[in-house]
Amino acid sequence: MSKIPYRTYLEEGEMPKSWYNVKVDMKEQHDPFLHPGTKQPLGAKDLEAIFCSELCAQEVNMTDRFIEIPPEIAEYYLTYRPSPLIRAYNLEKELDTPARIYFKFEGNNTSGSHKLNSAAAQVYYAKKQGLTGLTTETGAGQWGTALSMACAYFGIDLTVFMVKVSSQQKPYRKAVMETYGAKVIASPSTTTEVGRSILEKDPDTGGSLGCAISEAIELSMSSDSIRYVLGSVLDHVVLHQSVIGLEAKAAMEKIGEYPDIIIGCAGGGSNLGGLMAPFMGDKLTGKANPYFIAVEPASCPSLTRGKYAYDFGDVGRTTPLIKMYTLGSGFMPSANHAGGLRYHGMSPIMSKLYHDGYLDEARAVEQTAVFEAATLFAKHETILPAPESAHAIKIAIDEGLKCKESGEKKTILVGLSGTGYFDMQAYMSYTDKTMSDGIPSDEDLAPGLAEMEE
Amino acid sequence: MSKIPYRTYLEEGEMPKSWYNVKVDMKEQHDPFLHPGTKQPLGAKDLEAIFCSELCAQEVNMTDRFIEIPPEIAEYYLTYRPSPLIRAYNLEKELDTPARIYFKFEGNNTSGSHKLNSAAAQVYYAKKQGLTGLTTETGAGQWGTALSMACAYFGIDLTVFMVKVSSQQKPYRKAVMETYGAKVIASPSTTTEVGRSILEKDPDTGGSLGCAISEAIELSMSSDSIRYVLGSVLDHVVLHQSVIGLEAKAAMEKIGEYPDIIIGCAGGGSNLGGLMAPFMGDKLTGKANPYFIAVEPASCPSLTRGKYAYDFGDVGRTTPLIKMYTLGSGFMPSANHAGGLRYHGMSPIMSKLYHDGYLDEARAVEQTAVFEAATLFAKHETILPAPESAHAIKIAIDEGLKCKESGEKKTILVGLSGTGYFDMQAYMSYTDKTMSDGIPSDEDLAPGLAEMEE
Repeated sequence: MSKIPYRTYLEEGEMPKSWYNVKVDMKEQHDPFLHPGTKQPLGAKDLEAIFCSELCAQEVNMTDRFIEIPPEIAEYYLTYRPSPLIRAYNLEKELDTPARIYFKFEGNNTSGSHKLNSAAAQVYYAKKQGLTGLTTETGAGQWGTALSMACAYFGIDLTVFMVKVSSQQKPYRKAVMETYGAKVIASPSTTTEVGRSILEKDPDTGGSLGCAISEAIELSMSSDSIRYVLGSVLDHVVLHQSVIGLEAKAAMEKIGEYPDIIIGCAGGGSNLGGLMAPFMGDKLTGKANPYFIAVEPASCPSLTRGKYAYDFGDVGRTTPLIKMYTLGSGFMPSANHAGGLRYHGMSPIMSKLYHDGYLDEARAVEQTAVFEAATLFAKHETILPAPESAHAIKIAIDEGLKCKESGEKKTILVGLSGTGYFDMQAYMSYTDKTMSDGIPSDEDLAPGLAEMEE
Repeated sequence: MSKIPYRTYLEEGEMPKSWYNVKVDMKEQHDPFLHPGTKQPLGAKDLEAIFCSELCAQEVNMTDRFIEIPPEIAEYYLTYRPSPLIRAYNLEKELDTPARIYFKFEGNNTSGSHKLNSAAAQVYYAKKQGLTGLTTETGAGQWGTALSMACAYFGIDLTVFMVKVSSQQKPYRKAVMETYGAKVIASPSTTTEVGRSILEKDPDTGGSLGCAISEAIELSMSSDSIRYVLGSVLDHVVLHQSVIGLEAKAAMEKIGEYPDIIIGCAGGGSNLGGLMAPFMGDKLTGKANPYFIAVEPASCPSLTRGKYAYDFGDVGRTTPLIKMYTLGSGFMPSANHAGGLRYHGMSPIMSKLYHDGYLDEARAVEQTAVFEAATLFAKHETILPAPESAHAIKIAIDEGLKCKESGEKKTILVGLSGTGYFDMQAYMSYTDKTMSDGIPSDEDLAPGLAEMEE
């Protein structure tokens, strides 16, 4: 066989025509959303005040294994997909490992991350439903950027609540969103009741994803033609992101590979879930048995130190109750720079799979070690990774080094979910050694964990 | 025939194995460099105090039509190449033009531009020669970033003199270079004689590429194991950048296309020359007759308002004399944000081809119109272009609209040399309408033009 290429791209005709709905192959479903007041299970209809209808239908769909990607979305995907599957020859050489390490790289679009995959879908369905506006939150800015791009393309208004600390650290992220026509508001803001109430208690807060979510939901509830869109956590987002795993799987088949280990960083779970989905399907149906590792920041360790319980999705406690691994909706992570991983909870699908032992392992890693891995990767593979993605790189390096010791020629697939172009403040603090790990103590976590019922 | 894909990638086996040396096919060569004191022609040996030996040999090579890409460089290219040839279906639809518009996109690497193609080559040859350090200047930061990436990979020290106005506008560019291990100094600086002398005359100057070049050359002359590297203008840079045109040509052949019009932005000429080279070869040898358009900023119009004359490459007047289109080495462009196009001169190869009528046309465009084009492009094609590249986009749109009027189904190839991720300050000034065009008056240009002999 000839040498495996550095980069494998699918042809247009080889690209996925449907998303894969992993729930159909799960032995047990995750528990349903509950109404925060009545504690009764919620169906698609109940969610339609917040989300657009098609997304609500997808959210509760447990019967269609494959859901067709509408031609308009498939066409949008073609403006930046397929994404490359990268054989990390140089990193392997540097580690002197017999492992074959592959990165599925989702950063080659202007939003710089995988978020665009779901943004395109959500905006398309909103437009189709006749809505005039969308609203959302953004932390690191990747989701907001992705959404602003999709809104510009499909022609719909967008208001983004951006976590205040991120909007201060990343003025250029804001500028990108505004270039694509979005309205960007630092959160907490005085434009919503929940924002005003948070500011009253803590005028100097840097904000959080949970808080920005509350503000966006409040805005969406204020008008019939505006809906809220969410870039992670929810089942329909994991569904859309399955395009990552489907492409990766097809590309690996093309070069005669199948992963022994699959590694993804875990924030809200969309990148993780999307990358793993089709391989998880193989595991659930007994076709293969890859080993799954979720990597989270030690500063926001929902899987490794959280509780599997019903909790709110936002700090304002306005969302339905979600059964997931969580640190408590009031958890405010330290000013960790991997903004995309600063969420207190985790995708219900990924939470359930972790709880049931299909998602084999979660590891929490410290930020300084993550940036050390990021810098090593950047030097040898040329790509400057997003801090989020660098969490997965750190563990990929660890696993590569284990293979060096054991001599095992494992095939490792890693989700490289984005680039670090807009995270230079974080890289600067790593370079000048002012970066901290921001690990919460047990006492920090105790109040949030105590108030949730298992 | 099936539909042409949105993105065409070459397979590894289809990628260029050699660079193309357009000079071999030129009817007449450009005039040689002259010693600034004696005015005598300079050969390769004379240049070796400044540049590494292999690059000096390439600089004066007029006999080898194809120069093999060394395997180490070819391997480095594989970490980010091939770059895609993008069919701009959405832009065509928006313009309602029968033209087929293709963009060769060089921005999908961490440096964000085509500059990495020559950086990889120059660093490799320096390492091979046993040098321990390199020094250079950077304007927008793209060249410095590219070079810092290549230096990190091949293992060699780097000092970058960054135009002061750019280093203030783009602190994150500096941070990227430092992440890859480079030392970055704002220019003019007090570390060199020429820097100190410029600061004495004008302590508040924002600097210029010409001035930063002078400082870097002075540093390179201070040690036997340090050499200077330049990211544009010179013949060996155009040689390395021919990989853009060669890939574009091969990709177009793959889909059964050949360009009627080829459009590139013109700063020092490396992107322009690299994109055009193999097609220019076809024109010079009578195989085809594409129409070439160079696009420059109205704020720094070397081709459209400069003089074809011998001039210095730097403001400190330390370089050899170069026969080129120039606005005078003392020309200080207004604080135009397209940093990569703020150079007073133009590649001698491209200057000669323009002077002799093979490079058919040069157009100067105003900055606000450029950003209008950039924003339109970003919305429809999802990619946020570099301000430099957006100059070419502006003219591509103009040509597309001409085709709409005439009904001609022309094939247009455009160099999309980079992304605008690090140019958000400029996009912000466009969005908030504080952007100016900064066009020099005839009086501004007169002193510089008067002192040069034709």
